[in-house]
Amino acid sequence: MDIASIIGLLLGISLLVISVLLAGASFGAFIDYPSIMVVVGGSICAVLISFPLKSFFSVGTIAKNVFFNKQENIGQLVDQIVSLAETARRDGLLALENRIDELSNSFIILGIQMAVDGSRPEVIEDIMRTEMDAVATRHRNGKSVIDQMGRFAPAFGMIGTLMGLIVMLGDMSPETIGGGMAVALLTTLYGAIVSNLFFLPFAEKLGFINKHELLAMEITIRGIMSIQSGDNPRVIEQKLSTFIPPKLRNASKEAA
Amino acid sequence: MDIASIIGLLLGISLLVISVLLAGASFGAFIDYPSIMVVVGGSICAVLISFPLKSFFSVGTIAKNVFFNKQENIGQLVDQIVSLAETARRDGLLALENRIDELSNSFIILGIQMAVDGSRPEVIEDIMRTEMDAVATRHRNGKSVIDQMGRFAPAFGMIGTLMGLIVMLGDMSPETIGGGMAVALLTTLYGAIVSNLFFLPFAEKLGFINKHELLAMEITIRGIMSIQSGDNPRVIEQKLSTFIPPKLRNASKEAA
Amino acid sequence: MDIASIIGLLLGISLLVISVLLAGASFGAFIDYPSIMVVVGGSICAVLISFPLKSFFSVGTIAKNVFFNKQENIGQLVDQIVSLAETARRDGLLALENRIDELSNSFIILGIQMAVDGSRPEVIEDIMRTEMDAVATRHRNGKSVIDQMGRFAPAFGMIGTLMGLIVMLGDMSPETIGGGMAVALLTTLYGAIVSNLFFLPFAEKLGFINKHELLAMEITIRGIMSIQSGDNPRVIEQKLSTFIPPKLRNASKEAA
Amino acid sequence: MDIASIIGLLLGISLLVISVLLAGASFGAFIDYPSIMVVVGGSICAVLISFPLKSFFSVGTIAKNVFFNKQENIGQLVDQIVSLAETARRDGLLALENRIDELSNSFIILGIQMAVDGSRPEVIEDIMRTEMDAVATRHRNGKSVIDQMGRFAPAFGMIGTLMGLIVMLGDMSPETIGGGMAVALLTTLYGAIVSNLFFLPFAEKLGFINKHELLAMEITIRGIMSIQSGDNPRVIEQKLSTFIPPKLRNASKEAA
Amino acid sequence: MDIASIIGLLLGISLLVISVLLAGASFGAFIDYPSIMVVVGGSICAVLISFPLKSFFSVGTIAKNVFFNKQENIGQLVDQIVSLAETARRDGLLALENRIDELSNSFIILGIQMAVDGSRPEVIEDIMRTEMDAVATRHRNGKSVIDQMGRFAPAFGMIGTLMGLIVMLGDMSPETIGGGMAVALLTTLYGAIVSNLFFLPFAEKLGFINKHELLAMEITIRGIMSIQSGDNPRVIEQKLSTFIPPKLRNASKEAA
Repeated sequence: MDIASIIGLLLGISLLVISVLLAGASFGAFIDYPSIMVVVGGSICAVLISFPLKSFFSVGTIAKNVFFNKQENIGQLVDQIVSLAETARRDGLLALENRIDELSNSFIILGIQMAVDGSRPEVIEDIMRTEMDAVATRHRNGKSVIDQMGRFAPAFGMIGTLMGLIVMLGDMSPETIGGGMAVALLTTLYGAIVSNLFFLPFAEKLGFINKHELLAMEITIRGIMSIQSGDNPRVIEQKLSTFIPPKLRNASKEAA
Repeated sequence: MDIASIIGLLLGISLLVISVLLAGASFGAFIDYPSIMVVVGGSICAVLISFPLKSFFSVGTIAKNVFFNKQENIGQLVDQIVSLAETARRDGLLALENRIDELSNSFIILGIQMAVDGSRPEVIEDIMRTEMDAVATRHRNGKSVIDQMGRFAPAFGMIGTLMGLIVMLGDMSPETIGGGMAVALLTTLYGAIVSNLFFLPFAEKLGFINKHELLAMEITIRGIMSIQSGDNPRVIEQKLSTFIPPKLRNASKEAA
Repeated sequence: MDIASIIGLLLGISLLVISVLLAGASFGAFIDYPSIMVVVGGSICAVLISFPLKSFFSVGTIAKNVFFNKQENIGQLVDQIVSLAETARRDGLLALENRIDELSNSFIILGIQMAVDGSRPEVIEDIMRTEMDAVATRHRNGKSVIDQMGRFAPAFGMIGTLMGLIVMLGDMSPETIGGGMAVALLTTLYGAIVSNLFFLPFAEKLGFINKHELLAMEITIRGIMSIQSGDNPRVIEQKLSTFIPPKLRNASKEAA
Repeated sequence: MDIASIIGLLLGISLLVISVLLAGASFGAFIDYPSIMVVVGGSICAVLISFPLKSFFSVGTIAKNVFFNKQENIGQLVDQIVSLAETARRDGLLALENRIDELSNSFIILGIQMAVDGSRPEVIEDIMRTEMDAVATRHRNGKSVIDQMGRFAPAFGMIGTLMGLIVMLGDMSPETIGGGMAVALLTTLYGAIVSNLFFLPFAEKLGFINKHELLAMEITIRGIMSIQSGDNPRVIEQKLSTFIPPKLRNASKEAA
Repeated sequence: MDIASIIGLLLGISLLVISVLLAGASFGAFIDYPSIMVVVGGSICAVLISFPLKSFFSVGTIAKNVFFNKQENIGQLVDQIVSLAETARRDGLLALENRIDELSNSFIILGIQMAVDGSRPEVIEDIMRTEMDAVATRHRNGKSVIDQMGRFAPAFGMIGTLMGLIVMLGDMSPETIGGGMAVALLTTLYGAIVSNLFFLPFAEKLGFINKHELLAMEITIRGIMSIQSGDNPRVIEQKLSTFIPPKLRNASKEAA
């Protein structure tokens, strides 16, 4: 599913490179190291001021998530919960203990473990919802680091361009004015590209991944609560299936 | 009802073409393939990074919805629910089973089926509301793909213009400066048109269609719950009619 | 109360005309039909794509509302409800039937009718609140058509200016460049005026009118519910009077 | 407390005047009556269209509030409520009647009067909360008039500049172009100053004053409800003191 | 944890200085005192108008918080609450009185003190939540002073640039136009730097610090309520641990 992000990023970069070549411009005209320093360095500094050091360094992990996330398959999750419900119905809640080993999702394990331990339903739901809230908060904090990069990059692009213009206006001669202006505009270009091809889409994708993970957690909570209260596995399946898009629903039902 | 969108789009395009012709400009001055590539390609890449591949490819289906949606007629929906309520009142809930075949809306069918099966009211409402939430979420995700296209297009328009300006400033000669500047501005123009004549209105329309569909679902849920609890068909009609604009209300009542 | 809007609009237009004359400019320099076509036509097309045809055509009625709305007088409304409460207290709820004829507000009539018919309080409140929600939704839809006009107009102003600049840059000669640029800027000017002197203030006014109407409905609902539960007319008056600004309150009390 | 606003305004104006003088520019270059007319007149017209005449004329009173408001001292308010609670505890609720004369805040008087009259707690809270909501609504309406002035001023600044540019481009001669451009830019400058030195800070201040007044009302409601239910004055003091910033709290406690 | 903010700020300033030096520009070209006066002075005046004097002077304390805040360690807080819960379980609520001296966080002390005093749970939660709301409000007010500085700075940057341009256009000569333009652009540059390297990141950081403090308060409230109701310390630990990020959780558990 991450292929989309990788393809998008590579394609976007190629596209900009090709359009430069098509314009018959030398590629060197688009590279200016001090400009890169102002835009990228400035944005990093602004983000460094904005967040605790720990959040700042988590940016790598978060950005990696954009490309290398493995998302819970909602259909399989529902099937798994229904299957657990069948076991619980047939052999009792305690029988679920034997099935914990086959589970890989730590959030389901947490819920099943508490159900097996005989915790009260309110306690189970309370703990699971608090965990879900905490995950949502951590996700939001992580996403906001990326968001800020996307917001500060154009600002520092403009700062760099203003600095370039002021330098250029200082010694204006008809021969150098064009080149000076071109260099000055480079930082605005960098800021726009860094923001629109990297950080804003990354932030958007992270928001999407986060919503998907929270949906899986919501389904898990509802499933565990239903299992705990001894609901009929068919009713549980019907309830949880509403979270699956209709097209995929039949496939899932046939598999069940 | 989609005629509005089609007329609007065709009229808008004609209008821009005519205004170019009126200005006595050659139409060719407004076509530049690399600029189109940067704006459209760049926006597509940014959206490709922002969303999973599946959501991205659904863009076609979603955009089609703008033009070819058939919206539930709220008046007819209310009449249908009232008629079902009358059957249920007269012949009992089970009699609704015979009427399922004449229903076309799968959401009413779901509700009636559960009512006929004797599911408890809380379960029916819970499942129907979950389905409604799921539809709302899918709609929101679909709409946000279009929204992002509308937001990234002007950004890539600006990126293209900056690139064009930098190329132009590199070799400035009095003869070419005008043409170079014109080409540079083309990407900003493309970005503005793509955003304001296509994607932003599409997103707005989708939001409207979605709200209408959710309203129909809300009415259906209230209707099914009232039928299930054996309410008087006249009371149901009075309740649900409040959702119909007053002007259309009389017509609906006369028809009933 | 609409005088404000009419005066504001006429004054604003005169003001712009006078400032052109003061600048000693020929008025003709500010009229360019293709530019008007791009800005007004383009915005209309974008709105046509954004909304169903029915909503689009309601724009006339909605815009008329800005100038020719008659707003419920809150003080009189409270007095009327208190007077109805006195009748109900003295002669019973059924006595209200005789007073329905003297009522002009269809929302009070709806409530009184249901109270006279002996509907249960929950049903009355439910139906009245649903009606109020429906009115709020219709208002919001109507307002958003105007809002969109105000948002698209500057965008098409910019589109027109970009087109003008591209045409101008195509054949740049020292004699024509000034005139070409002036014409190009006209669309941006049109977009800004159409948006800031017409549609944005209209949308603001509509929001204000809508809030006022919903306040009157809220007061009516609370009043009807109090009448229905047999509250003391003095208590009802005290409760509802809090909605009247303090300055106007005494006048209303004296009148009562 | 209003000294801040007056100092800020005078200082800001002086600052702009001084910076003009420092630049060695003639002050007359910054005065252009038609430009003032377009910016200030245009914004006033837009606001006139946006609001009913009554709200529009309240702008003077509202703006005066920015400078001449006397804010409830939260510490004194808490002390007063605690003292009333002590009286109520010692001599009964009816004893509060004798103390009404010493109260100046009409909102406390309203609450105490109802408590003395023996109104039911739900009725007291309901009426007081409705009054509080009504005050919040009136404040919000008042603030939004100022907000709109702050939003329309830069828009009409831009409209004026566009008009100036179009006039200037009409007869471009090397001698007049500089002066024409300077006059054109004046309206944008006026719009920015009117917005950023007057109306936006005024709106911000009004928001602050309103929040403070609503906080005082919230404290009053909680205090009256506690007095009415016969709570221990120490508990009331502890509860209400949490609204006072810690630094000021000790002082208030010592005074108590 | 504040090292991030200090490093970020110093690095950001150095980076801008270095990029000026790299451009071979004289540093003096970037210093203009009247421009600094307009941007910094203007923003300060606008904020002075926007807030009461007291809030304005708190800006120093607030800004200091960005660099010198000591944040509650959530892991240690949870351990402390669990340890208090063990004491309460073993020796009764009253035994907590002896442990108050070892607590440093005044919010826990408040809660424990009330629990020891035998206040009713609703009263404890009510007082603690009111205190938490009051802290949130004070934080929000403090943050909004910084926010406004970040918003007004670019506005006054633009005002300064417009003034500079108008002065420059007044006496345009080919020799001075470049320098005049450069000086005019300086204020926009100052506004952008002051906003993007100082106040916007400061506001972001404050928001982060505030959220962290409110989280600690939320955990404290839940912990105190659980202790008061005599919950099992293991259950309390499990509940509160969900607020700790998974990576840090094990360490905390081992320490416990």
